[in-house]
Amino acid sequence: MKPVKVGICGLGTVGSGTFNVLTRNAQEISRRVGCEIIVEQIGARRDNPNCITTTTNITRDIFEVATNPEIDIVVELIGGYDIALKLVLLAIENGKHVVTANKALIAVHGNQIFAAAKKHNVTVAFESAVAGGIPIIKALREGLAGNKINSIAGIINGTGNFILSEMQEKSRDFADVLIEAQALGYAEADPTFDVEGIDAAHKLTILASIAYGVPLQFEKAYTEGISKITAADIKFADELGYRIKHLGIARRTAQGIELRVHPTMIPKQTLLANVNGVMNAVVVDADAVGQTLHYGAGAGAEATGSAVVADIIDIARNIGGANTNPVAPLGFQAEALLDTTILAMEQTETCYYLHLKAAEKPGVLADVTKILGQSGINIEAIVQKESDQDYVPVILLTQQVAEQKMNEAIAAIEALDCILGEVTRIRVEHL
Amino acid sequence: MKPVKVGICGLGTVGSGTFNVLTRNAQEISRRVGCEIIVEQIGARRDNPNCITTTTNITRDIFEVATNPEIDIVVELIGGYDIALKLVLLAIENGKHVVTANKALIAVHGNQIFAAAKKHNVTVAFESAVAGGIPIIKALREGLAGNKINSIAGIINGTGNFILSEMQEKSRDFADVLIEAQALGYAEADPTFDVEGIDAAHKLTILASIAYGVPLQFEKAYTEGISKITAADIKFADELGYRIKHLGIARRTAQGIELRVHPTMIPKQTLLANVNGVMNAVVVDADAVGQTLHYGAGAGAEATGSAVVADIIDIARNIGGANTNPVAPLGFQAEALLDTTILAMEQTETCYYLHLKAAEKPGVLADVTKILGQSGINIEAIVQKESDQDYVPVILLTQQVAEQKMNEAIAAIEALDCILGEVTRIRVEHL
Repeated sequence: MKPVKVGICGLGTVGSGTFNVLTRNAQEISRRVGCEIIVEQIGARRDNPNCITTTTNITRDIFEVATNPEIDIVVELIGGYDIALKLVLLAIENGKHVVTANKALIAVHGNQIFAAAKKHNVTVAFESAVAGGIPIIKALREGLAGNKINSIAGIINGTGNFILSEMQEKSRDFADVLIEAQALGYAEADPTFDVEGIDAAHKLTILASIAYGVPLQFEKAYTEGISKITAADIKFADELGYRIKHLGIARRTAQGIELRVHPTMIPKQTLLANVNGVMNAVVVDADAVGQTLHYGAGAGAEATGSAVVADIIDIARNIGGANTNPVAPLGFQAEALLDTTILAMEQTETCYYLHLKAAEKPGVLADVTKILGQSGINIEAIVQKESDQDYVPVILLTQQVAEQKMNEAIAAIEALDCILGEVTRIRVEHL
Repeated sequence: MKPVKVGICGLGTVGSGTFNVLTRNAQEISRRVGCEIIVEQIGARRDNPNCITTTTNITRDIFEVATNPEIDIVVELIGGYDIALKLVLLAIENGKHVVTANKALIAVHGNQIFAAAKKHNVTVAFESAVAGGIPIIKALREGLAGNKINSIAGIINGTGNFILSEMQEKSRDFADVLIEAQALGYAEADPTFDVEGIDAAHKLTILASIAYGVPLQFEKAYTEGISKITAADIKFADELGYRIKHLGIARRTAQGIELRVHPTMIPKQTLLANVNGVMNAVVVDADAVGQTLHYGAGAGAEATGSAVVADIIDIARNIGGANTNPVAPLGFQAEALLDTTILAMEQTETCYYLHLKAAEKPGVLADVTKILGQSGINIEAIVQKESDQDYVPVILLTQQVAEQKMNEAIAAIEALDCILGEVTRIRVEHL
């Protein structure tokens, strides 16, 4: 078979990782695919000392790659929205298959990109956009394709997981660990995308669309970060048998699809609770297979490159074959996507951990439990902690209830004279 | 697109699970594939009360399914070797694609079956043959296809893992737990296949061929069961920071491929050590992605059915498409398979836990450590336990050494007058 020719746009961390994996493992890969895969051209603003590209044609104009008639597959690894979108659409219009690691691009512009790809009869693949090297998109689209997916819960941002793991292990505070994470290169100078859950919400949006066969709707994902998590809450959670993890959760309910990223308490003996450091893991709960867990490196040059190369190999296997029915980008056929409601956060249901700062006077617990009772919220556990401060921490675990009811109850509790400051609320999932 | 028509042979546990998943999720599946998947015929000796097949054409002659001109995909779920082989080859000769959950068949007769499939230009798929519902074969063949695989270590027999988990958790003995496992239906009346590691070796053989691109060579796998593991060894392992798991291990070395199933001590904080009960998990270590772990139900009607249906969907997606280069059965092209040496067990290298029963007299440790030193075996830890019996348990952990050297050292230790009975040897892997 003819060699398959790849053009790589962007030679940063993932670009260099992809190049190195493709070239180092070229022989093993061609044993698998049955033909050579060649990096025909690289488009990058500058060279990268982490890969030796001296024998490769390098252009400073990435758009040249998208129109290069020699190239079969354009690999978009420049990141960001606008230029990446322009590049990907140009490549598609020129009949190129596209591989991208850009979760923001797919989550926000994926519907448009997939429509263009369908029109031009090319494939768009993005395994590396979610959970780095873990083949979770393939698992959902293909490996579990016989199932109705009930829920997905994932640690899909390594930065956030590193911070929470350090806070847990060393009883340190968020701000303190963030500085260390930045020094180690695990967190950006502006960490907003990671610690506020935006990056995780991009990834969750993609996973949910594949799980349920709905268009990408990033704007409907609820996003809450980890910057307000304290060492005290991690300690209280631990005493109750839980770990706090920053999870992306998608769940199918009779009312619609829940789509939410927030700090979440999960039982500490679960495998997911024991995924630490920068590692990622996704738990899928499905009607036939039950629970599966998919664990691995969520970032890094070659781990992400591994997923990019897997996509390239998938496409290369089809290029010779005139396959008229390849796997659709979201696993479901475009015309079979549904307009299932994505629930507003107020409509979602979960259990809650509440941390109240109570004044030291009688009747506080009576007032609080009365409010919860009137809202129909059942209490699972209640613990009053000792304190050396001018308030008493009261910890409550509730049974499952709609977020709307909990919002109202929290507002009523915060209005009590005997409650100081804001109530800390952490959602609890038993997976 | 035309419906894809499936014939299911065998209506036991997996057959009924497959039928139920295919029919219950028919709508979701056709949204994914773009066409209907219909169970055209079932071949089974008897009906199964767990599935309602009243509207399906049932024959008592499974070979009728293999030659039925209406059928596109024959699903072999009868198990065993001879009749299953005959059925699969007949289906292939009749131009049918084949899906099978039969690990013994693939491990022992796979090379012959794949050659026949290639000749007749049909696909043979067997995701359900390894680790039940976990899409591990797809992960290795496709999701991690850009990698050179270093090693695979898996809990790939649920029966064995249930027994070891119970022994661990409740300090019970093997024989005792086996009886319970049989009562619960987790173990067969004759448990040999499961507890002696034969089933795991079938699965490991398949995984190793896919990981390294070598023909299936079940006869070269080393197999050691768990029936000699004692509650005492589990306790000593725990004190040293380890769990004992029955692992299938394949590893690429400069000398060749290690292929071995045996009880293995692994650090207790690893995720794999925390996979308990009947669950399965496979850790893959690869050059680009690093470690990934794939966890889920290794058995059960619908969990295994989930993998069978995934294979059916994969084939259905290709049926309309005239794909001339589908993924090869072992991931690598047939002509690219290598005759890499599979190492004999004596040539493999690992660390060891040794449990000696020493007579209560001076000089025992000196004698033992002298033998190890002369064999070039470095000791990592040594613990002499208290005992209320007529011997003193001595526990040793060694550094990595070739099995052959360890065999010789153990023979020499057992020959010492001051050592009573056999030395217990458990291999240690740090993953």
